[in-house]
Amino acid sequence: MTRNLLVAQSGGPTAVINSSVSGIVTEATSSKKVDGIYGAINGILGVLHEELVDLRLEDSSAIQKLRHTPSAALGSCRYKLSERDYERIMEVFRAHNINYFLCAGGNDSMDTAHKVAQLANAKSYELRVIGVPKTVDNDLMITDHCPGYGSVARFNASATRDSGLDTEAIYTSDTIKIIETMGRDTGWITASTALGRDGEGSAPHLIYLPERPFVAENFLEDVKGVYDRLGRAVICVCEGLKNEKGEFLKASANKIDTDKFGHAQLGGVGDYLVNLISNELKIKARFDKPGTIQRVSMVCASQVDLAEAYRVGQFAVAKAVEGETDKMVTLIRKTDDPYESENGLVNLEEVALRTKKLPETFINKRSNYVTDAFLKYASPLVGGPLLEYAHLRKERLKKQLPQYL
Amino acid sequence: MTRNLLVAQSGGPTAVINSSVSGIVTEATSSKKVDGIYGAINGILGVLHEELVDLRLEDSSAIQKLRHTPSAALGSCRYKLSERDYERIMEVFRAHNINYFLCAGGNDSMDTAHKVAQLANAKSYELRVIGVPKTVDNDLMITDHCPGYGSVARFNASATRDSGLDTEAIYTSDTIKIIETMGRDTGWITASTALGRDGEGSAPHLIYLPERPFVAENFLEDVKGVYDRLGRAVICVCEGLKNEKGEFLKASANKIDTDKFGHAQLGGVGDYLVNLISNELKIKARFDKPGTIQRVSMVCASQVDLAEAYRVGQFAVAKAVEGETDKMVTLIRKTDDPYESENGLVNLEEVALRTKKLPETFINKRSNYVTDAFLKYASPLVGGPLLEYAHLRKERLKKQLPQYL
Repeated sequence: MTRNLLVAQSGGPTAVINSSVSGIVTEATSSKKVDGIYGAINGILGVLHEELVDLRLEDSSAIQKLRHTPSAALGSCRYKLSERDYERIMEVFRAHNINYFLCAGGNDSMDTAHKVAQLANAKSYELRVIGVPKTVDNDLMITDHCPGYGSVARFNASATRDSGLDTEAIYTSDTIKIIETMGRDTGWITASTALGRDGEGSAPHLIYLPERPFVAENFLEDVKGVYDRLGRAVICVCEGLKNEKGEFLKASANKIDTDKFGHAQLGGVGDYLVNLISNELKIKARFDKPGTIQRVSMVCASQVDLAEAYRVGQFAVAKAVEGETDKMVTLIRKTDDPYESENGLVNLEEVALRTKKLPETFINKRSNYVTDAFLKYASPLVGGPLLEYAHLRKERLKKQLPQYL
Repeated sequence: MTRNLLVAQSGGPTAVINSSVSGIVTEATSSKKVDGIYGAINGILGVLHEELVDLRLEDSSAIQKLRHTPSAALGSCRYKLSERDYERIMEVFRAHNINYFLCAGGNDSMDTAHKVAQLANAKSYELRVIGVPKTVDNDLMITDHCPGYGSVARFNASATRDSGLDTEAIYTSDTIKIIETMGRDTGWITASTALGRDGEGSAPHLIYLPERPFVAENFLEDVKGVYDRLGRAVICVCEGLKNEKGEFLKASANKIDTDKFGHAQLGGVGDYLVNLISNELKIKARFDKPGTIQRVSMVCASQVDLAEAYRVGQFAVAKAVEGETDKMVTLIRKTDDPYESENGLVNLEEVALRTKKLPETFINKRSNYVTDAFLKYASPLVGGPLLEYAHLRKERLKKQLPQYL
C-alpha cells in the first residue's frame, strides 16, 4: 500500500512558510517511507474540495526557489471547520492514502491538526499528524519563537530605523510619526521595531503594546515628553491596542468586523492616534502602516528565520516517518552568542488555540517601551546586523552674525 | 580670498539624496578651486540661522557610507522664504565666503535656488548656484527622471509583488487589498507598482493616478470585474486622488465626512476606498500604506539610482567650478538596453515651481492602469530585476470523491 504525505499551509502568509514547504518536500523526497508528496490548495479548503497537487512533479529547482519565495505558494485560508468537515477530511485522506499530514500554521491550525489526529485515532486510521509552526505573530506556546517572526521583525526594525531617519531629517515640518504594525492580540511584532534603534535619540522613541491597556493621558504625556526633548517623535503601535475598557482603539467611522474564528479585524489605530495628537497636543502627526507588506517582504527576510523554517519542515517529516503524531515541532534556543537553536516536539493540544503574550519582563514599567531582556531575546532572530549607515560629526562653524529671528 | 562651497538638502528625504551629498563632497575635495566645504543643517533654515557644519572634518569613510545611507543626513526642511529671508541668506553667504551654493531638492527648492542666484547677480556678489535634482515624486521638468525615483519605484514594485502574493494566497478570506502610495500631484510613484507585476493574474490589477479624476462608479465596476475574474484584487492608488470636482478623496483629518453614497468617511484614500468597496460591493477589503517607509528604504534602493545620485552631485560641483550658475543638473537618457544616462544642465527658472505629470501615453484609456510605454520608461530605473521567485506547476490529482458542498 502506498503511503502518501500531504502538506497544507494555513493562516496569514509569511516570508518563510514556503521555506518550510521546501524542507518538507526535500526531506520527504529522500525518505523511502513516503510515496506520494501532495500539497493542498488553499490549506484545509483544498482538502475539503479535494484540490490536491502532486509535488513530485515540480522541478527540483522550483522546490529550491521556494526557500526564497514569500507568501504561501500552495495557497492558504482562514476557515473554521465543522464536525461534518472533519468527516470529509478523513474521507479525502482515505481516498488518497494520506498517511502523513503536515500542517503549517498558527494556533488555530494546530487545533485543526490536533482534531484531525484525534479523529484518525478514534477511527483507527493510520495517520501521523505533525504541526509546522508558522506565524509572524510569534504567539505559539512552548516554542522559543515561531518561523516567520524573525523576518517580520527584520522588516519592522529596518523600516522603523529608515523611517526614523526620515523624521529626524524633516522634523521641522513633519514632527510626529506613528508606525502601525500588525499584531492581533500580542505585541511581539510591534516590539521588534525597537531592534531598529540606532543610538541615543533615534527611533523608535515610544512603543505601545496590546499587553497593556492604552491610557490616552499617559500616551499624550509620553509623546509631549519626547517632543519637548527632541522636537520630534516616532511612535510604534500595535493594531490591536485596546483602551482600559478592553475596546479596540479605532477612528469612529471604522467598524470592526470579525473573521471566521471570531477574531476582530482591525484598522484605524494610526488614524486614531494621529487625530488624538493633532487635537490634544496641536502637533502635526502622520502615520505609516506597512500592513501585509511587513509579513511577506523577501528583501528583509532574516537568514536565521529562512534557515530555521526549512529545518522545521525537514524535522516534521523525519518525525512523522519515525511514527510521531499529534505533535508540533518547536524551536529550542541553545545559545545566544553565537545563536544556535535545535528542534523539539510538543503535544498539539498544548499549543492549540493558546496564545503566548509578551512576558512582563519584556515591557517597561511605564508600558511605553520594551526592556533589554526583550532585545536580548529578539536580536539573534533577525539574522545579523542591519545595513551600516554613516554617522556624521557635524562640527559647527563659528557664527559670524547676530541671531536671526 | 577663500572660496567656500555650501550644500543644502531640502524637502522630503529619499534613499539617495545622501549619495548626492557624497558625490558633492568627494568632487569638491578634489577641486583646487574649492576651499571650505560646508553643509547647512536642515536646509535653508540652517542658512538663515547660520547653523553650518564643516564637512572637511568628516571622516572620509563617513562620506563614503553616505552613498548608502537613506534620508537627509544634514537635515531638511519645508520652508517658504520671505523677502527678508533672501537678504539674510546673502548676509550669511558673505559672512562665510560662500561662492558655490548647491541645493538638492524638488521644484520648490529650485525656485529658492533660482531666486538666490538672481539676488546674488543683482548685488554683484559672485555666487554659483547649481540645483541638484532630488525627489521621489519624479515630477521635475526637463530631466528624464529624478534621483530618488528609481528607489521608491523599486520599493513599491517589490512591495506590491510580495503583497500581491499574499493576497493570492489568502484571497478566500482577505479578498481585496488597496495599496496607498505617495504622490500628492502626480502618479509617478503609484505607477511604479506596475513594475512588480509578475505575469498573468498577478498584482497590481488596477492602478489609479491623480492625473485622471477618480470616478467611483468606474472604480467599482473595475474592481468587480477583477474580482469576478480572479476572486481577488490588488489595487494601487495614489494618496493624491481627486474626484471629478477636484476634491481629494479624503475627509479633513479631524472630522467625519460623508461621501456621495452617504457613508461616513474618515482618514485617507486607503480608508475611503476600503469603505467604498465594503459598502457597495460587500467584499472584504483592507489597505496597506507604506507611507514614508517607501521613500527611504535602503534595502530596496536602486543601484542605478544610487549611482546616478552620486554622479549628479559630482557633476553639479564640476559645473559650479567651471563657472555655471542658475542651473539645475539633468539626467539625459542615452540608451534603454543597456540603460545609460548622462548629465546636462537646464536653467533653474525652467524647472522652478513647475510640475511634470505623467504624459497621456503612460496611462491607459480606461484610466485604470499604466501602458507599456510607461513600463519601458521606468524599468531601467529600478536597477535590475527583482528577486527571483518560484513558480509551481501545481498539477492536480484526479478527484476520487463526489463534490463536497
